[in-house]
Amino acid sequence: MPETAPPTGDGQETTASYTPTARTVPTRGRERASYDRELVHSVLDEAYVCHLGFVRDGAPVVLPTLFGRIGERLYVHGSTGSRPLREAGAGTPGLPVCLTVTHVDGLVLARSAFHHSVNYRCVVVHGTALPVTGPEERRVALDAIVDQAVPGRSRDSRPADTKELAATAVLRLDLDEVSAKVRTGGPGDEPSDLALPYWAGVLPLTRGHGAPVPSDDLDPAVPVPDYLAPR
Amino acid sequence: MPETAPPTGDGQETTASYTPTARTVPTRGRERASYDRELVHSVLDEAYVCHLGFVRDGAPVVLPTLFGRIGERLYVHGSTGSRPLREAGAGTPGLPVCLTVTHVDGLVLARSAFHHSVNYRCVVVHGTALPVTGPEERRVALDAIVDQAVPGRSRDSRPADTKELAATAVLRLDLDEVSAKVRTGGPGDEPSDLALPYWAGVLPLTRGHGAPVPSDDLDPAVPVPDYLAPR
Repeated sequence: MPETAPPTGDGQETTASYTPTARTVPTRGRERASYDRELVHSVLDEAYVCHLGFVRDGAPVVLPTLFGRIGERLYVHGSTGSRPLREAGAGTPGLPVCLTVTHVDGLVLARSAFHHSVNYRCVVVHGTALPVTGPEERRVALDAIVDQAVPGRSRDSRPADTKELAATAVLRLDLDEVSAKVRTGGPGDEPSDLALPYWAGVLPLTRGHGAPVPSDDLDPAVPVPDYLAPR
Repeated sequence: MPETAPPTGDGQETTASYTPTARTVPTRGRERASYDRELVHSVLDEAYVCHLGFVRDGAPVVLPTLFGRIGERLYVHGSTGSRPLREAGAGTPGLPVCLTVTHVDGLVLARSAFHHSVNYRCVVVHGTALPVTGPEERRVALDAIVDQAVPGRSRDSRPADTKELAATAVLRLDLDEVSAKVRTGGPGDEPSDLALPYWAGVLPLTRGHGAPVPSDDLDPAVPVPDYLAPR
């Protein structure tokens, strides 16, 4: 395998959709659920952070964290001293997790309070996070995590050295039990409410970025890289 | 109690900070943790959705959902047919949950891949979600959920009728075991990396909204309300 070839899942990329399971078929809003692989990837790739859920002492814990995707695998990382990473690394069978990514695209204002909603795209991944121990997979995983936020950045920074690698735990979560859920469009008001004197529609939400702020100690001769240009 | 008075917690609003617990003191990055009540409230109030974690069949589940805050109580709602709401409503002792809100404020680019980070503000709430059954508390909770996204909107829409109220479950989560975590500032590069030829600094992320998009069936005579003005 060439160094830049991403690790793949179990050949799942040959199908267009994930297979629904009892956990990925919602009890409500089934018409909004999707198992389309391309949609799932696009929602994941647009995110800066995910929310990672796990169980500690019988209770749920949800923490935001950086992540990266290579093909059909997600990676998260953290200090070898962090609790979830220690627990996942404690051996078989790994750490049961739920990894969720959400984009809120608009606020949906209906005439009735009841039909207020949001337009959103979310992906929910169920599975078991496993420690990544192979040096090559750890290396490409860490690059993917850096590139998730700023594509191209991993090639324009100093790679982790031996000491930093030793301090970093990497977990892998295969994209296997996965669903997306998407809401678009305007409010779904009741016909009997349409004549009420309340404004109804969508307030689109936007995301962007400001001008890059150089570090105080940055040599002014270092130019702003192309990958930070307005997008 | 007048109708507009918010339910309060247990008099906790008289102290400036939440009391740290074993669950709210992080093993890593303690210097970023805060228990300041005003900070916690401000992070919560700026969010459109939270990520709600609970345990189902021993495994974690994390779902995005709307929420609202009244004083020291958070509220979430959903269909009476949804699984977590059914489970919480099944009686004592309620549903153990972790409710997390995250804002990503900037991407932190260091010379080293290892020191890449994000500037963020997050709040993590641990506790037990309990069903809200009192009609008055349900009413103000539902208003708070609508007003969380668009302050003032609940007064400018049709309130839920009897049938809608019967279809809606409301859960309450007291702000008791709570922490915030905040990262600000530039990258924390190693002194030995400062002369490397890589750009370093912060890419600030911004959020905003576009022009309100009226519903196709909206009477053009209905004006855009003031609370949708640019903000």
